Amino acid sequence: MTDSMQQITLAARPEGAPKDSDFALVEKPLPEPAEGEVLVRVQAFSLDPYMRGRMDDAKSYAAPVPIDGVMEAGGVGEVIASRSPHFAVGDSVFGMFGWATHGCLPANQLRKLDRSLPATTALGVLGMPGFTGWYGLTELGRPKAGETLVVAAATGPVGSMVGQIAKARGLRTVAIAGGAEKCALAMEKFGFDAAIDHRAYEDARSLRKALAEAAPDGIDIYFENVGGKVFEAVLPLMNTFGRIPLCGMISGYNAGALSSTKAQGPDRLPMLWSSILVKQMSVNGFIISNHYEHYPTFLKEVAPLVASGKISYLEDIAKGLDNAPQAFMGMLEGRNTGKQIVQLT
Amino acid sequence: MTDSMQQITLAARPEGAPKDSDFALVEKPLPEPAEGEVLVRVQAFSLDPYMRGRMDDAKSYAAPVPIDGVMEAGGVGEVIASRSPHFAVGDSVFGMFGWATHGCLPANQLRKLDRSLPATTALGVLGMPGFTGWYGLTELGRPKAGETLVVAAATGPVGSMVGQIAKARGLRTVAIAGGAEKCALAMEKFGFDAAIDHRAYEDARSLRKALAEAAPDGIDIYFENVGGKVFEAVLPLMNTFGRIPLCGMISGYNAGALSSTKAQGPDRLPMLWSSILVKQMSVNGFIISNHYEHYPTFLKEVAPLVASGKISYLEDIAKGLDNAPQAFMGMLEGRNTGKQIVQLT
Repeated sequence: MTDSMQQITLAARPEGAPKDSDFALVEKPLPEPAEGEVLVRVQAFSLDPYMRGRMDDAKSYAAPVPIDGVMEAGGVGEVIASRSPHFAVGDSVFGMFGWATHGCLPANQLRKLDRSLPATTALGVLGMPGFTGWYGLTELGRPKAGETLVVAAATGPVGSMVGQIAKARGLRTVAIAGGAEKCALAMEKFGFDAAIDHRAYEDARSLRKALAEAAPDGIDIYFENVGGKVFEAVLPLMNTFGRIPLCGMISGYNAGALSSTKAQGPDRLPMLWSSILVKQMSVNGFIISNHYEHYPTFLKEVAPLVASGKISYLEDIAKGLDNAPQAFMGMLEGRNTGKQIVQLT
Repeated sequence: MTDSMQQITLAARPEGAPKDSDFALVEKPLPEPAEGEVLVRVQAFSLDPYMRGRMDDAKSYAAPVPIDGVMEAGGVGEVIASRSPHFAVGDSVFGMFGWATHGCLPANQLRKLDRSLPATTALGVLGMPGFTGWYGLTELGRPKAGETLVVAAATGPVGSMVGQIAKARGLRTVAIAGGAEKCALAMEKFGFDAAIDHRAYEDARSLRKALAEAAPDGIDIYFENVGGKVFEAVLPLMNTFGRIPLCGMISGYNAGALSSTKAQGPDRLPMLWSSILVKQMSVNGFIISNHYEHYPTFLKEVAPLVASGKISYLEDIAKGLDNAPQAFMGMLEGRNTGKQIVQLT
């Protein structure tokens, strides 16, 4: 057991896409847990689009990471020291340890993991992203058999959950993904009825034509997690009483889509507001961290489906803490395939 | 009893604001009711902003009025001939008779009126506009005591219902209205806690400043019935988990806001889409005609409040069918005070 730990901190606020020099690798002594705390060796942590928002010093749905602060992340690991009666050395746990080899947290901020599934499932398919897809679709999307659903980033951990749950409930599911390989994965691994490579279409108009063919009865639910061109393509195809759960806009994150000063994608659409009225749509923004009261229900419903293989998932593993920034930058550009994870041990 | 009737038809599709020559007054023989039909002498009919949308040949939530077709309207009147066992001569009824002195409709398209209230209440406070306000506020706005509500056109039949129901449920209510007289009415007659004259503010930014003072805790519910400058002023003041029931955008109707080709007001806002996400808002477009299953509940709850004077209402009466076009054009510009009605007898 080493007596030091490593973390990646925010060295500078990125202008546009983050670059290596926006991150710093720091080493520090391993902390001693205080009374009620637990020390964890991190085995893997999650990289998610929301972290890009945390790098900007702008009002968003969570406070920014301070300069020289540790980059935030959920991770899974093994308890190596405990001063809480609720955790023992060797326990497998989930916690917000950040981009780090170790973390020391109060016991009430940790969750013990079911060892019958790989620990990394707690980061993706059964973690925040999978929960986001499940909650947004079932609570806000209100899916009905026979309807048509469209979701982008369809091989990612949110989109693949949305597609599989919708398919299981009898909807026609249309994937949007970047590249032929991801489109094939969407259909073969995640059971989408159709898949469209958004890179093959120059603009929203041509993408819309392909979408209209893949969704001949129109679109009832658009699960919005990317924004930009895809949203522009989708809007005119929405059916009356359509629902748009809105959980992210990765296409705009590097352009400051969540800051309060910069314009982005869909807002250039002239007809957004009147479309919502005329088509009597329901648009609901949600931040999943405010809905964890539903997480036990999600786990109870979906964990058995993952265990039995009825829900599939894909992970894209980067190895080693020092590779986290590159993996993160790649993910923001869609270079990952499946849930992006950094594995440490 | 005369043997002819008069109607106002759509002579031409308006470019922008309608003008006199877009309407024509026609005379025709009084129809004989067929089996199952009822002939009604119209006493008063309603003028509503949605009628402007029907004048455009554009995809909207209802079919356009054809050229030379009778302008649509709900009216109240007295049965003068009946070939239905459900209605007798002398009954007071509501039906979609159009801008017309008489109407002949199948009995199943008529509703008998409670004679204990003035018939014109079926056009405003207890008719479509009042129902719109009640349904949008209670079902989609989900008001909670202590919250703040903003509604524009606050002395109109929708806005005044919204404000009074919200006030009764313990919300702080902020009116937006055009002119000092309407602002005084909003507070004195409809009990709003504050009223802002939008004409006193040149742009959205200055209007927003006044709004921020009137709504020091931010805005939880914005009942959207006007669009344009008001919407732009409101959006940045919305609180997290804010709700926007969206039932109309009168400010844009003359500019084709509901057609599929023209840009209007709020869509120029750069941050609409990301605001919905970051503030986790719920935006719900609705067309009240699809929600009449709730109408009996509305009548049961609100009619006694109108009868007892706990819910107030204002009517602006134009006299005579030939004055309907002028009254309609004035209403689109906000020159009416209260529910615009055309009285015939």
